[in-house]
Amino acid sequence: MKAIIVIGDGMADRPISELGGKTPLQVARKPSIDKLPRLGISGIMDPISPGIPAGSDTSHLAILGYDPYKYYQGRGAFEALGAGLEVGLGDISFRGNFATVDNDLVVTDRRAGRIGNSDADELAKSLDGIRLDDFPDVQVVFKHTVEHRCAIILKGPRLSRMVSDSDPEGERQKIHVVKNLDQSSEALRTSSIINELTKRFHQILENHPVNTRRRVAGLPPANAILFRGAGTVPKATPITETYNIKALVIAAGALYKGVCRAVGMDTIEVKGATGTYETDTVAKARAAVESLSKYDYILVHVKGTDNAAHDGNFKQKIAMIEKIDALIDYLLKNVDLSETFIAITADHTTSCDWKEHMGDPVPISITGPEIRVDSVERFSEVDCAQGGLGRIRGINITPILMDLIGKSKKFGE
Amino acid sequence: MKAIIVIGDGMADRPISELGGKTPLQVARKPSIDKLPRLGISGIMDPISPGIPAGSDTSHLAILGYDPYKYYQGRGAFEALGAGLEVGLGDISFRGNFATVDNDLVVTDRRAGRIGNSDADELAKSLDGIRLDDFPDVQVVFKHTVEHRCAIILKGPRLSRMVSDSDPEGERQKIHVVKNLDQSSEALRTSSIINELTKRFHQILENHPVNTRRRVAGLPPANAILFRGAGTVPKATPITETYNIKALVIAAGALYKGVCRAVGMDTIEVKGATGTYETDTVAKARAAVESLSKYDYILVHVKGTDNAAHDGNFKQKIAMIEKIDALIDYLLKNVDLSETFIAITADHTTSCDWKEHMGDPVPISITGPEIRVDSVERFSEVDCAQGGLGRIRGINITPILMDLIGKSKKFGE
Repeated sequence: MKAIIVIGDGMADRPISELGGKTPLQVARKPSIDKLPRLGISGIMDPISPGIPAGSDTSHLAILGYDPYKYYQGRGAFEALGAGLEVGLGDISFRGNFATVDNDLVVTDRRAGRIGNSDADELAKSLDGIRLDDFPDVQVVFKHTVEHRCAIILKGPRLSRMVSDSDPEGERQKIHVVKNLDQSSEALRTSSIINELTKRFHQILENHPVNTRRRVAGLPPANAILFRGAGTVPKATPITETYNIKALVIAAGALYKGVCRAVGMDTIEVKGATGTYETDTVAKARAAVESLSKYDYILVHVKGTDNAAHDGNFKQKIAMIEKIDALIDYLLKNVDLSETFIAITADHTTSCDWKEHMGDPVPISITGPEIRVDSVERFSEVDCAQGGLGRIRGINITPILMDLIGKSKKFGE
Repeated sequence: MKAIIVIGDGMADRPISELGGKTPLQVARKPSIDKLPRLGISGIMDPISPGIPAGSDTSHLAILGYDPYKYYQGRGAFEALGAGLEVGLGDISFRGNFATVDNDLVVTDRRAGRIGNSDADELAKSLDGIRLDDFPDVQVVFKHTVEHRCAIILKGPRLSRMVSDSDPEGERQKIHVVKNLDQSSEALRTSSIINELTKRFHQILENHPVNTRRRVAGLPPANAILFRGAGTVPKATPITETYNIKALVIAAGALYKGVCRAVGMDTIEVKGATGTYETDTVAKARAAVESLSKYDYILVHVKGTDNAAHDGNFKQKIAMIEKIDALIDYLLKNVDLSETFIAITADHTTSCDWKEHMGDPVPISITGPEIRVDSVERFSEVDCAQGGLGRIRGINITPILMDLIGKSKKFGE
């Protein structure tokens, strides 16, 4: 028995007046998605707890069975893992941006003109592996990911994730001086390292031939790195060990791959899977079906629904839901439902009106063999509330799916 | 966005045979209350946990978002806060009764003939601020509240709330000697202080001119104070700080005002709000509407439903529900539902048959903008169990309402 869970990021919503008080899930044409409740059992799910808006990182941790209040230690390590870097238990990881600053370190472009991949790759090589004179025991790992984005890891003794961001999260502001967020000597030391590193990175980048070239071409130089989201990798028993399974994530975004890698899941690259509106959802479905022979538990993540909601674009959100319908259609046509379970849910509600994550529950449907089929006919926030699963929490989902595929362990005798 | 939550104390019930197996909520004429589920989302709510009968104090703590197992530290401090006293973190507060005792300290009237306010006020002045020779470092604050009731606070070092009551809770019994409930020196010291104070209060009251006058008039003298409910104020982040809101309680009973004050809410006095069957519920609704410009979150409490159930009087309970219907009617006519949420619930089930709090869940309905409207048509224990909120806990309510009005904070990124 196998299980595939499809997560539409931020796919749930609140009723939208322009949609006659319906949600995008209620309005979208999604005959395949709706087969899941019709053939299965449904419910509503609070990613964290009722009324608490979840981040994508905390929610995915919960959905994979890890209490985020216990295991969440910042976003940085997930981004680094998702970028394919190896992150040790004591390492401190950050998300970073290539940015443009003036001589006073005032940010003039937070994305260095959305610098292209080849320039950024070349610049990254000059930063990876550098050492600071004042902190000779600290190793710096630097990797460019996509566009202006990068991941940075500090490796060494006495480091702490309890440091603030240098990223001012806006332009025409000076790069923030990083501060210690607790009174430990480790946090103080780490904040000094980042402040020192910010200067060194600026020195190296300012005079780098790539930036000389960019200036000549009239492009903003990528002459600074902004740090944010200091994080460590949680010390958790891998999901593969807990359930004695092989598990895979199919996602484009580094964060989702990172969370899944942190709990022991494998990742694969799928051609056409981009994390954008143009992503090839059927390619993801095909990759999932092809991986079923090797994996017991596969998480397929689609990001575009969340992007659309953050943009306040409910039409785009509906279009993305319809692209997820194509994904489910492929699965239903190519998966043997007598030995495979398919679940669909969202990692949180993202409101097109508020353009933000909200604390409302999300719908969930599960179909497969030996399911207690209820009377829910459509996959939506309102319909699924009438389902046989009742109201569950994110942290319940993986134990339910592992139990359905016969991988749970009895507690007691 | 704003939220008003209306709490009918003990409003939920069990089916009553004299009502053809219906509950008072199912029988009462309440067209306005029923509009809330019709326009909104409903569910059932366990104030604490399924099957656990909640007190009004623990339930209100939970409804305001504070886990009562963590934050409940006895009733006394809430009564003192509700009486308008300032209570510090180490202070020990009690509820008290003016009572009549004979020469052997046997209680002959637990309420001193339901002593009137002017007599009690005058007697209280002679007790407030006294010092005990053996405990010179302890300050005594004494305030009469209503009828025979009073609040007492001990301020000083090394005090503990872990002491038993002196109130025998019945007549023809001697005032109980207060005992320490744990082995700490603080509890032992506090029990000695109360026992000493009981004697001093008796000495002062026995010969007080008010009691001389009362004896002449044939009234029972108020010559003793009975202590119960030793409590401390919980050390909790105020709700106003957690959510960055202004919050108000509209209630007559000291307990409700006290719990709300303990978590940082303001109180106002409403003319005609009495906490009895005669209370002016529409005056409370008017006060809520008038306060909407200043406050984000308003809790309106009505006590009479609980009193009626404790009296075993289901007709009176139905009448009180109909008075709450008038309150909701006023709100619906005077509140803009495009920017204000209205919720209604009970703090616990009080059974007219058992005349006591029971552990059954209570119904809850929430209406306002962007609500995922379900198909529940009536506000009752049975109907709301079919609602889109499913089964939630008391502690979920404030997070849900704060998220609806856009005051929640995301956990994770």
